[in-house]
Amino acid sequence: MSRVYNFSAGPSAFPESVLQQAQQEMLDWRGSGMSVMEMSHRGKHFSIIAEELESDLRELMAIPENYKVLFLQGGASAQFAFIPQNILNGKSKACYVNTGAWSEKAIKDAKAYCDVVVSASSEESKFTTIPDVAGWVLDTEAAYLHYTSNETIHGVEFQNIPDSLGLTLISDMSSNILSRTVDVSQYGLIYAGTQKNMGPAGVTVVIVRDDLIGHADKKVPGVFNYAEQVKNGSMLNTPTTYNWYLVGLVLKWLKAQGGVAAIEQRNIAKSAKLYQAIDQSTLYRNPVEKAYRSRMNVPFILADEALDKEFLKAAEANGLYELKGHRSVGGMRASIYNAMPDAGVDALIAFMAEFERSH
Amino acid sequence: MSRVYNFSAGPSAFPESVLQQAQQEMLDWRGSGMSVMEMSHRGKHFSIIAEELESDLRELMAIPENYKVLFLQGGASAQFAFIPQNILNGKSKACYVNTGAWSEKAIKDAKAYCDVVVSASSEESKFTTIPDVAGWVLDTEAAYLHYTSNETIHGVEFQNIPDSLGLTLISDMSSNILSRTVDVSQYGLIYAGTQKNMGPAGVTVVIVRDDLIGHADKKVPGVFNYAEQVKNGSMLNTPTTYNWYLVGLVLKWLKAQGGVAAIEQRNIAKSAKLYQAIDQSTLYRNPVEKAYRSRMNVPFILADEALDKEFLKAAEANGLYELKGHRSVGGMRASIYNAMPDAGVDALIAFMAEFERSH
Repeated sequence: MSRVYNFSAGPSAFPESVLQQAQQEMLDWRGSGMSVMEMSHRGKHFSIIAEELESDLRELMAIPENYKVLFLQGGASAQFAFIPQNILNGKSKACYVNTGAWSEKAIKDAKAYCDVVVSASSEESKFTTIPDVAGWVLDTEAAYLHYTSNETIHGVEFQNIPDSLGLTLISDMSSNILSRTVDVSQYGLIYAGTQKNMGPAGVTVVIVRDDLIGHADKKVPGVFNYAEQVKNGSMLNTPTTYNWYLVGLVLKWLKAQGGVAAIEQRNIAKSAKLYQAIDQSTLYRNPVEKAYRSRMNVPFILADEALDKEFLKAAEANGLYELKGHRSVGGMRASIYNAMPDAGVDALIAFMAEFERSH
Repeated sequence: MSRVYNFSAGPSAFPESVLQQAQQEMLDWRGSGMSVMEMSHRGKHFSIIAEELESDLRELMAIPENYKVLFLQGGASAQFAFIPQNILNGKSKACYVNTGAWSEKAIKDAKAYCDVVVSASSEESKFTTIPDVAGWVLDTEAAYLHYTSNETIHGVEFQNIPDSLGLTLISDMSSNILSRTVDVSQYGLIYAGTQKNMGPAGVTVVIVRDDLIGHADKKVPGVFNYAEQVKNGSMLNTPTTYNWYLVGLVLKWLKAQGGVAAIEQRNIAKSAKLYQAIDQSTLYRNPVEKAYRSRMNVPFILADEALDKEFLKAAEANGLYELKGHRSVGGMRASIYNAMPDAGVDALIAFMAEFERSH
């Protein structure tokens, strides 16, 4: 079979050229006589990969020098527990904004370690909007304010950095990191799993400001203690070496595309044409308030739910895969991360129009 | 450059045929039109990979039905903290045997959660032996007895399962899992990072008896709570999908080799000839008591330390890589896991003899 267009929410499609390079280097990386996955993480070859990974990410995101970059394990979900344990620093409260399923999980896990102040919630609207920042409850005694910059399941995305009124700002950017420019200096901490815009599952990027490091609860395991991992270059234990390498290849691909600002323009155009196709149809509908629609995850429902199965089957027959919406919201979802080419979105739009004509 | 013999302690050498298969399937797994790393972990393709992974491991290790198998993140080092938090079940003590650097780390981390009874220690001998089980201090009030079945840095390996006198037995088998037959039913819990005998870094296998599941401390993050992960098939959050796939390929390779009993015979022969070459020489020496020498990691020192650098340089010139001993013990170390072919060990022995003749 030839390659398909894969709209999976994550793990998700790779740039084909990255896969080709990984394929070519599989048995012998740059004349080392080894696959990257066979290399000692402390050896001279892997040191090059690790250094390039960090410097490429710093360049792409313009990360200021007073921020450390960690490449950890456990996924963003593990950080739901380890952020409070590393950052609370003796405080007993933290503020969380609830804009969807991932915010909810972060809130649930944080409650084991502190009192959670829910600063705002769009639950009443079924997570189809983002509450106006003017109305957020920001507790000045809180250690930080946490929000999820893009909700993959509900397809809701912050379009600006919210004003935290001086609270340390923390964001889970798992599903839109590197898809748009971000002023890192506005944050205390940014974290993201890599399996959407950065590469395979298996690396958790944590970008954290110097002054927040070193105040962890004593019960945090060493491998999740930011200060310990900073001291050890994220190698307190064996890192996920091959995954680091793959993330590195994706970053080099992104640089070759012109970097984050350039890919952002393409993401704006890609998502705009898909939303336009949905809005102009009578069969498809996206429930999210226009100002907060995600550029990464585009959920849509069919006017007649009975057509869902047929839609998915016909889509696959046209080489369009993983369009089923999350079980909690139903319908369809097209995830169109950085690696989804224009041609994939165009093929989806053409298929949707044809399906509508014939039904 | 052609492929080298890689004696790294981990991450470590792969069977070449596994790399070739991964290479071939990189852009399209079994006609799916996707790379495995692009697949949704909940999709139909990856479900096959996940199922085969577990069933192949169960078959290879003859894991009884009343044991669950988890594939987690964070490495064995993360389990140093999460084993006590999952298994203590209200008890305040646990017994640990100290046979080297990895035991020491496990002990250090466990102390944050319970009183550690050091049942035995070979520290005085500089970890060159294993204390006679008859002299171990086993506290009947302890929740479990923990030991490290093979110490990668010191090259010391348990040759039999120790009698825990009824205490729940837990073993870190990171560096010798699948290298020898093991009666799983003698254990409460076995765990291992995959980056030595099972595949790439990025998966932590936890094999745990049913009755030990469900008693976790409330503060354990969900992704490290055994009961939660059992309920979710190790997919409470996105697993390290591509790493699972690679482990799966290694397991299928091992099955094709005749399974664990067959590879064990080869490991006995491989390690025996290397130890024999060391013992018969005057230049090389292995400090470990013969009864406890590791089949996986063979450390050796040169009679004249001043020759170390030249030895390593000449070895690389002969295609023999990563022979430098761990910085904490110095000298050399040859890690000869399942994937190291006989030819690699033969080449090392021939090189060592030639180096001795010429120095």
